[in-house]
Amino acid sequence: MEYPNSIIRLIENFKRLPGVGEKSAERYAFSINELEKEDVIDFSEALVDVKTKIKKCPLCNNITEDEVCSICKDETRDKSTICVVENIKNVFSFENLSVYNGLYFVLDGLISPIDGIGPEDINIEYLIRRIKEENIKEVILAINPSIEGETTLLYIQKLLENIDVTVTRIAHGIPLGADIEYIDPLTLEMALNDRKEVS
Amino acid sequence: MEYPNSIIRLIENFKRLPGVGEKSAERYAFSINELEKEDVIDFSEALVDVKTKIKKCPLCNNITEDEVCSICKDETRDKSTICVVENIKNVFSFENLSVYNGLYFVLDGLISPIDGIGPEDINIEYLIRRIKEENIKEVILAINPSIEGETTLLYIQKLLENIDVTVTRIAHGIPLGADIEYIDPLTLEMALNDRKEVS
Repeated sequence: MEYPNSIIRLIENFKRLPGVGEKSAERYAFSINELEKEDVIDFSEALVDVKTKIKKCPLCNNITEDEVCSICKDETRDKSTICVVENIKNVFSFENLSVYNGLYFVLDGLISPIDGIGPEDINIEYLIRRIKEENIKEVILAINPSIEGETTLLYIQKLLENIDVTVTRIAHGIPLGADIEYIDPLTLEMALNDRKEVS
Repeated sequence: MEYPNSIIRLIENFKRLPGVGEKSAERYAFSINELEKEDVIDFSEALVDVKTKIKKCPLCNNITEDEVCSICKDETRDKSTICVVENIKNVFSFENLSVYNGLYFVLDGLISPIDGIGPEDINIEYLIRRIKEENIKEVILAINPSIEGETTLLYIQKLLENIDVTVTRIAHGIPLGADIEYIDPLTLEMALNDRKEVS
Protein backbone atom coordinates (compact mmCIF):
# COMPACT_ATOMS: atom_id res chain seq x y z
CA MET A 1 0.00 0.00 0.00
CA GLU A 2 1.35 3.37 -0.97
CA TYR A 3 1.12 6.73 0.74
CA PRO A 4 -1.21 9.27 -0.88
CA ASN A 5 0.44 11.08 -3.84
CA SER A 6 0.77 14.43 -2.12
CA ILE A 7 2.64 12.79 0.78
CA ILE A 8 4.96 10.93 -1.62
CA ARG A 9 5.75 14.18 -3.42
CA LEU A 10 6.54 15.97 -0.15
CA ILE A 11 8.74 13.07 1.04
CA GLU A 12 10.75 13.31 -2.20
CA ASN A 13 11.21 17.03 -1.59
CA PHE A 14 12.38 16.58 2.00
CA LYS A 15 14.91 14.04 0.74
CA ARG A 16 16.68 16.85 -1.13
CA LEU A 17 17.81 18.27 2.21
CA PRO A 18 21.34 17.34 3.30
CA GLY A 19 21.49 14.17 5.41
CA VAL A 20 17.76 13.47 5.17
CA GLY A 21 16.91 9.89 4.22
CA GLU A 22 13.64 8.08 3.59
CA LYS A 23 12.67 7.66 7.25
CA SER A 24 13.29 11.26 8.31
CA ALA A 25 11.61 12.58 5.17
CA GLU A 26 8.51 10.51 5.99
CA ARG A 27 8.51 11.81 9.55
CA TYR A 28 8.79 15.39 8.35
CA ALA A 29 6.08 14.96 5.70
CA PHE A 30 3.58 13.50 8.16
CA SER A 31 4.34 16.26 10.67
CA ILE A 32 3.38 18.91 8.10
CA ASN A 33 -0.14 17.56 8.15
CA GLU A 34 -0.28 18.21 11.91
CA LEU A 35 0.71 21.90 11.59
CA GLU A 36 -1.76 24.78 11.38
CA LYS A 37 -2.60 25.78 7.82
CA GLU A 38 -1.15 29.29 8.20
CA ASP A 39 2.14 27.84 9.46
CA VAL A 40 2.37 25.58 6.42
CA ILE A 41 1.68 28.52 4.12
CA ASP A 42 4.35 30.56 5.89
CA PHE A 43 6.81 27.66 5.52
CA SER A 44 5.96 27.36 1.85
CA GLU A 45 6.46 31.09 1.24
CA ALA A 46 9.69 31.17 3.25
CA LEU A 47 11.19 28.55 0.95
CA VAL A 48 10.52 30.50 -2.22
CA ASP A 49 11.49 33.74 -0.47
CA VAL A 50 14.98 32.48 0.33
CA LYS A 51 15.50 31.35 -3.24
CA THR A 52 14.21 34.65 -4.63
CA LYS A 53 15.74 37.18 -2.26
CA ILE A 54 19.10 35.69 -1.33
CA LYS A 55 21.86 36.63 -3.77
CA LYS A 56 25.59 36.09 -3.74
CA CYS A 57 27.66 39.20 -3.05
CA PRO A 58 29.56 39.90 -6.30
CA LEU A 59 32.66 40.90 -4.32
CA CYS A 60 33.06 38.14 -1.75
CA ASN A 61 30.45 35.48 -2.66
CA ASN A 62 28.79 35.81 0.79
CA ILE A 63 24.98 35.74 0.86
CA THR A 64 23.01 38.97 0.92
CA GLU A 65 19.56 40.36 0.25
CA ASP A 66 21.14 43.59 -1.09
CA GLU A 67 23.37 44.32 -4.07
CA VAL A 68 26.59 44.02 -2.06
CA CYS A 69 26.87 42.24 1.32
CA SER A 70 26.93 44.19 4.59
CA ILE A 71 30.60 43.36 5.22
CA CYS A 72 31.90 44.50 1.82
CA LYS A 73 29.72 47.63 2.12
CA ASP A 74 31.04 48.52 5.60
CA GLU A 75 33.49 51.42 5.24
CA THR A 76 35.01 50.86 8.68
CA ARG A 77 36.43 47.44 7.78
CA ASP A 78 40.06 46.80 7.01
CA LYS A 79 40.12 46.37 3.24
CA SER A 80 43.70 45.12 3.18
CA THR A 81 43.01 41.76 4.83
CA ILE A 82 40.96 38.99 3.27
CA CYS A 83 39.92 35.81 5.03
CA VAL A 84 39.27 32.87 2.69
CA VAL A 85 36.62 30.41 3.91
CA GLU A 86 35.01 27.40 2.28
CA ASN A 87 31.38 28.22 2.93
CA ILE A 88 29.00 30.96 3.97
CA LYS A 89 28.39 29.60 7.46
CA ASN A 90 32.10 30.03 8.25
CA VAL A 91 31.71 33.78 7.64
CA PHE A 92 29.03 33.91 10.34
CA SER A 93 31.19 31.84 12.72
CA PHE A 94 34.03 34.36 12.45
CA GLU A 95 31.71 37.37 12.57
CA ASN A 96 30.14 36.15 15.79
CA LEU A 97 33.55 36.35 17.47
CA SER A 98 33.61 40.12 16.80
CA VAL A 99 37.41 40.10 16.66
CA TYR A 100 38.08 40.09 12.92
CA ASN A 101 37.59 43.32 11.03
CA GLY A 102 38.82 42.48 7.53
CA LEU A 103 37.04 41.21 4.44
CA TYR A 104 36.08 37.67 3.47
CA PHE A 105 36.11 35.57 0.39
CA VAL A 106 33.80 32.55 0.23
CA LEU A 107 34.96 29.74 -2.04
CA ASP A 108 32.31 27.71 -3.87
CA GLY A 109 33.50 24.58 -2.03
CA LEU A 110 36.88 22.85 -2.12
CA ILE A 111 39.03 21.26 -4.82
CA SER A 112 38.11 17.58 -5.00
CA PRO A 113 39.40 15.66 -8.02
CA ILE A 114 37.37 12.59 -6.97
CA ASP A 115 34.14 14.59 -7.32
CA GLY A 116 35.41 16.32 -10.47
CA ILE A 117 35.71 19.69 -8.74
CA GLY A 118 38.72 21.63 -9.97
CA PRO A 119 40.07 25.12 -9.10
CA GLU A 120 37.99 26.68 -11.90
CA ASP A 121 34.79 25.46 -10.21
CA ILE A 122 35.35 27.19 -6.89
CA ASN A 123 36.11 30.75 -7.99
CA ILE A 124 39.84 30.77 -7.15
CA GLU A 125 40.77 32.76 -10.27
CA TYR A 126 38.59 35.65 -9.14
CA LEU A 127 40.08 35.53 -5.63
CA ILE A 128 43.63 35.83 -7.04
CA ARG A 129 42.57 38.71 -9.28
CA ARG A 130 41.09 40.57 -6.30
CA ILE A 131 44.24 40.04 -4.25
CA LYS A 132 46.38 41.38 -7.08
CA GLU A 133 44.21 44.35 -7.98
CA GLU A 134 43.08 45.57 -4.57
CA ASN A 135 46.28 46.00 -2.68
CA ILE A 136 45.55 43.20 -0.22
CA LYS A 137 48.31 42.88 2.42
CA GLU A 138 47.31 39.64 4.15
CA VAL A 139 45.39 36.58 2.99
CA ILE A 140 44.20 34.40 5.88
CA LEU A 141 43.38 30.88 4.76
CA ALA A 142 40.69 29.64 7.16
CA ILE A 143 40.04 26.29 5.54
CA ASN A 144 39.27 23.05 7.34
CA PRO A 145 42.22 20.62 7.39
CA SER A 146 40.53 17.84 5.39
CA ILE A 147 42.18 16.27 2.34
CA GLU A 148 40.19 18.59 0.04
CA GLY A 149 40.94 21.53 2.33
CA GLU A 150 44.67 20.90 2.25
CA THR A 151 44.63 20.49 -1.54
CA THR A 152 42.76 23.78 -1.95
CA LEU A 153 45.03 25.54 0.52
CA LEU A 154 48.23 24.36 -1.19
CA TYR A 155 46.85 25.35 -4.58
CA ILE A 156 46.02 28.90 -3.45
CA GLN A 157 49.35 29.17 -1.63
CA LYS A 158 51.18 28.20 -4.85
CA LEU A 159 49.33 30.81 -6.92
CA LEU A 160 50.21 33.51 -4.38
CA GLU A 161 53.91 32.59 -4.22
CA ASN A 162 55.08 35.37 -6.52
CA ILE A 163 52.63 38.00 -5.31
CA ASP A 164 53.67 40.47 -2.62
CA VAL A 165 51.16 39.45 0.05
CA THR A 166 51.43 37.75 3.44
CA VAL A 167 49.68 34.37 3.39
CA THR A 168 48.70 32.87 6.74
CA ARG A 169 46.55 29.97 7.82
CA ILE A 170 44.59 29.62 11.04
CA ALA A 171 46.16 27.41 13.71
CA HIS A 172 45.19 23.78 14.11
CA GLY A 173 45.80 21.91 17.34
CA ILE A 174 44.15 20.56 20.47
CA PRO A 175 40.85 22.36 21.13
CA LEU A 176 40.29 23.78 24.62
CA GLY A 177 38.74 21.22 26.94
CA ALA A 178 39.91 18.25 24.88
CA ASP A 179 42.12 15.54 26.27
CA ILE A 180 45.41 14.59 24.55
CA GLU A 181 44.57 10.97 25.29
CA TYR A 182 41.52 11.03 23.04
CA ILE A 183 42.59 13.38 20.28
CA ASP A 184 43.10 11.92 16.78
CA PRO A 185 46.76 11.36 15.76
CA LEU A 186 46.66 13.86 12.87
CA THR A 187 45.54 16.71 15.12
CA LEU A 188 48.13 15.73 17.71
CA GLU A 189 50.85 15.76 15.06
CA MET A 190 49.74 19.23 13.90
CA ALA A 191 49.72 20.44 17.49
CA LEU A 192 53.25 19.15 17.96
CA ASN A 193 54.57 20.62 14.71
CA ASP A 194 52.99 24.02 15.39
CA ARG A 195 54.36 24.26 18.94
CA LYS A 196 55.23 27.75 20.19
CA GLU A 197 58.02 28.90 22.47
CA VAL A 198 56.51 30.07 25.75
CA SER A 199 59.40 31.57 27.67
CA MET B 1 26.15 39.43 12.78
CA GLU B 2 22.78 37.99 11.86
CA TYR B 3 21.69 35.90 8.92
CA PRO B 4 19.56 37.68 6.31
CA ASN B 5 15.87 37.88 7.30
CA SER B 6 14.63 35.41 4.73
CA ILE B 7 17.12 32.80 5.99
CA ILE B 8 16.08 33.41 9.62
CA ARG B 9 12.44 32.94 8.69
CA LEU B 10 13.16 29.69 6.88
CA ILE B 11 15.27 28.39 9.80
CA GLU B 12 12.34 29.04 12.16
CA ASN B 13 10.07 27.09 9.84
CA PHE B 14 12.42 24.12 9.61
CA LYS B 15 12.57 24.06 13.41
CA ARG B 16 8.86 23.12 13.44
CA LEU B 17 9.77 19.70 12.05
CA PRO B 18 10.10 16.90 14.63
CA GLY B 19 13.62 16.51 16.01
CA VAL B 20 15.06 19.44 14.06
CA GLY B 21 17.12 21.85 16.18
CA GLU B 22 18.90 25.10 15.40
CA LYS B 23 21.93 23.52 13.69
CA SER B 24 20.01 21.19 11.39
CA ALA B 25 17.52 23.93 10.54
CA GLU B 26 20.41 26.22 9.52
CA ARG B 27 21.90 23.47 7.39
CA TYR B 28 18.57 22.82 5.68
CA ALA B 29 17.89 26.53 5.11
CA PHE B 30 21.29 27.13 3.49
CA SER B 31 20.86 24.06 1.31
CA ILE B 32 17.62 25.48 -0.12
CA ASN B 33 19.62 28.29 -1.62
CA GLU B 34 21.73 25.74 -3.51
CA LEU B 35 18.73 24.01 -5.13
CA GLU B 36 17.37 24.85 -8.55
CA LYS B 37 14.55 27.40 -8.50
CA GLU B 38 11.97 24.97 -9.95
CA ASP B 39 12.81 22.42 -7.27
CA VAL B 40 12.25 24.99 -4.54
CA ILE B 41 8.91 25.98 -6.08
CA ASP B 42 7.91 22.31 -6.26
CA PHE B 43 8.91 21.84 -2.60
CA SER B 44 6.90 24.91 -1.64
CA GLU B 45 3.81 23.71 -3.51
CA ALA B 46 4.14 20.19 -2.13
CA LEU B 47 3.93 21.55 1.42
CA VAL B 48 0.67 23.38 0.84
CA ASP B 49 -0.63 20.51 -1.26
CA VAL B 50 -0.30 18.03 1.60
CA LYS B 51 -2.06 20.38 3.98
CA THR B 52 -4.86 21.03 1.49
CA LYS B 53 -5.44 17.59 0.00
CA ILE B 54 -4.82 15.21 2.88
CA LYS B 55 -7.89 14.59 5.01
CA LYS B 56 -8.62 12.22 7.83
CA CYS B 57 -10.92 9.32 6.95
CA PRO B 58 -14.13 9.89 8.94
CA LEU B 59 -14.41 6.15 9.63
CA CYS B 60 -10.93 5.16 10.76
CA ASN B 61 -8.94 8.42 11.08
CA ASN B 62 -6.38 7.20 8.52
CA ILE B 63 -5.15 9.77 5.98
CA THR B 64 -6.71 9.96 2.55
CA GLU B 65 -7.09 12.29 -0.41
CA ASP B 66 -10.64 10.99 -0.95
CA GLU B 67 -13.80 11.15 1.14
CA VAL B 68 -13.20 7.77 2.75
CA CYS B 69 -9.81 5.99 2.86
CA SER B 70 -8.98 3.17 0.46
CA ILE B 71 -9.08 0.55 3.22
CA CYS B 72 -12.53 1.47 4.57
CA LYS B 73 -13.80 1.69 0.99
CA ASP B 74 -12.48 -1.74 0.02
CA GLU B 75 -15.40 -4.19 -0.13
CA THR B 76 -13.15 -7.25 0.03
CA ARG B 77 -11.86 -6.48 3.51
CA ASP B 78 -13.03 -8.25 6.63
CA LYS B 79 -15.28 -5.71 8.33
CA SER B 80 -15.54 -7.70 11.54
CA THR B 81 -11.93 -7.15 12.67
CA ILE B 82 -10.50 -3.80 13.67
CA CYS B 83 -6.82 -3.14 14.40
CA VAL B 84 -6.22 -0.18 16.72
CA VAL B 85 -2.93 1.68 16.11
CA GLU B 86 -1.52 4.87 17.58
CA ASN B 87 -0.52 6.65 14.40
CA ILE B 88 -1.00 6.64 10.64
CA LYS B 89 2.45 5.27 9.84
CA ASN B 90 1.59 2.09 11.75
CA VAL B 91 -1.25 1.47 9.28
CA PHE B 92 1.24 1.51 6.42
CA SER B 93 3.63 -0.80 8.33
CA PHE B 94 0.88 -3.41 8.70
CA GLU B 95 -0.39 -2.92 5.16
CA ASN B 96 3.06 -3.52 3.73
CA LEU B 97 3.03 -7.00 5.26
CA SER B 98 0.01 -7.90 3.09
CA VAL B 99 -1.20 -10.38 5.69
CA TYR B 100 -3.89 -8.42 7.51
CA ASN B 101 -7.21 -7.98 5.77
CA GLY B 102 -9.36 -6.28 8.42
CA LEU B 103 -10.03 -2.63 9.19
CA TYR B 104 -7.98 -0.14 11.20
CA PHE B 105 -8.66 2.55 13.71
CA VAL B 106 -6.02 5.25 14.18
CA LEU B 107 -5.98 6.89 17.60
CA ASP B 108 -5.03 10.56 17.81
CA GLY B 109 -2.01 9.63 19.97
CA LEU B 110 -1.91 7.97 23.37
CA ILE B 111 -3.29 8.78 26.81
CA SER B 112 -0.63 10.78 28.65
CA PRO B 113 -1.75 12.51 31.86
CA ILE B 114 1.67 14.27 32.10
CA ASP B 115 1.02 16.00 28.77
CA GLY B 116 -2.62 16.57 29.64
CA ILE B 117 -3.86 14.11 27.02
CA GLY B 118 -6.91 12.19 28.22
CA PRO B 119 -9.09 9.53 26.56
CA GLU B 120 -11.42 12.23 25.18
CA ASP B 121 -8.51 13.73 23.20
CA ILE B 122 -7.63 10.61 21.25
CA ASN B 123 -11.00 9.59 19.88
CA ILE B 124 -11.55 6.50 22.04
CA GLU B 125 -15.25 7.19 22.50
CA TYR B 126 -15.83 6.98 18.75
CA LEU B 127 -13.83 3.74 18.57
CA ILE B 128 -16.02 2.13 21.25
CA ARG B 129 -19.17 3.32 19.50
CA ARG B 130 -18.01 1.78 16.22
CA ILE B 131 -17.20 -1.52 17.93
CA LYS B 132 -20.65 -1.61 19.50
CA GLU B 133 -22.62 -0.54 16.45
CA GLU B 134 -20.84 -2.38 13.67
CA ASN B 135 -20.84 -5.96 14.84
CA ILE B 136 -17.06 -6.12 15.27
CA LYS B 137 -15.88 -9.58 16.36
CA GLU B 138 -12.21 -8.91 17.17
CA VAL B 139 -10.34 -5.81 18.29
CA ILE B 140 -6.57 -6.13 17.86
CA LEU B 141 -4.69 -3.66 20.02
CA ALA B 142 -1.44 -2.94 18.15
CA ILE B 143 -0.07 -0.31 20.47
CA ASN B 144 3.60 0.17 21.40
CA PRO B 145 4.41 -1.06 24.93
CA SER B 146 5.43 2.34 26.34
CA ILE B 147 3.98 3.73 29.57
CA GLU B 148 1.46 5.77 27.57
CA GLY B 149 0.79 2.78 25.33
CA GLU B 150 0.05 0.50 28.27
CA THR B 151 -2.22 3.13 29.87
CA THR B 152 -4.18 3.52 26.65
CA LEU B 153 -4.39 -0.21 26.12
CA LEU B 154 -5.68 -0.89 29.65
CA TYR B 155 -8.20 1.92 29.30
CA ILE B 156 -9.62 0.54 26.04
CA GLN B 157 -9.57 -3.01 27.43
CA LYS B 158 -11.60 -1.84 30.45
CA LEU B 159 -14.23 -0.14 28.27
CA LEU B 160 -14.62 -3.29 26.18
CA GLU B 161 -14.99 -5.63 29.20
CA ASN B 162 -18.76 -5.89 29.00
CA ILE B 163 -19.02 -5.89 25.24
CA ASP B 164 -19.21 -9.17 23.35
CA VAL B 165 -16.00 -8.85 21.37
CA THR B 166 -12.63 -10.65 21.42
CA VAL B 167 -9.86 -8.26 22.45
CA THR B 168 -6.28 -9.24 21.55
CA ARG B 169 -2.94 -7.47 21.64
CA ILE B 170 0.04 -8.10 19.38
CA ALA B 171 2.87 -10.13 20.89
CA HIS B 172 5.89 -8.48 22.45
CA GLY B 173 9.18 -10.32 22.89
CA ILE B 174 12.68 -10.75 21.53
CA PRO B 175 12.84 -9.56 17.91
CA LEU B 176 14.38 -11.94 15.36
CA GLY B 177 18.13 -11.48 15.09
CA ALA B 178 18.45 -9.90 18.53
CA ASP B 179 20.60 -11.35 21.27
CA ILE B 180 19.15 -12.12 24.71
CA GLU B 181 22.37 -10.77 26.21
CA TYR B 182 21.68 -7.28 24.91
CA ILE B 183 17.91 -7.05 25.14
CA ASP B 184 16.41 -4.61 27.67
CA PRO B 185 15.06 -6.25 30.87
CA LEU B 186 11.45 -5.16 30.25
CA THR B 187 11.34 -6.87 26.85
CA LEU B 188 12.99 -9.96 28.31
CA GLU B 189 10.41 -10.07 31.09
CA MET B 190 7.59 -9.78 28.54
CA ALA B 191 9.17 -12.53 26.44
CA LEU B 192 9.34 -14.76 29.51
CA ASN B 193 5.79 -14.05 30.64
CA ASP B 194 4.37 -14.61 27.15
CA ARG B 195 6.19 -17.92 26.63
CA LYS B 196 4.40 -20.54 24.55
CA GLU B 197 4.30 -24.29 24.86
CA VAL B 198 6.12 -25.79 21.89
CA SER B 199 5.58 -29.52 22.14
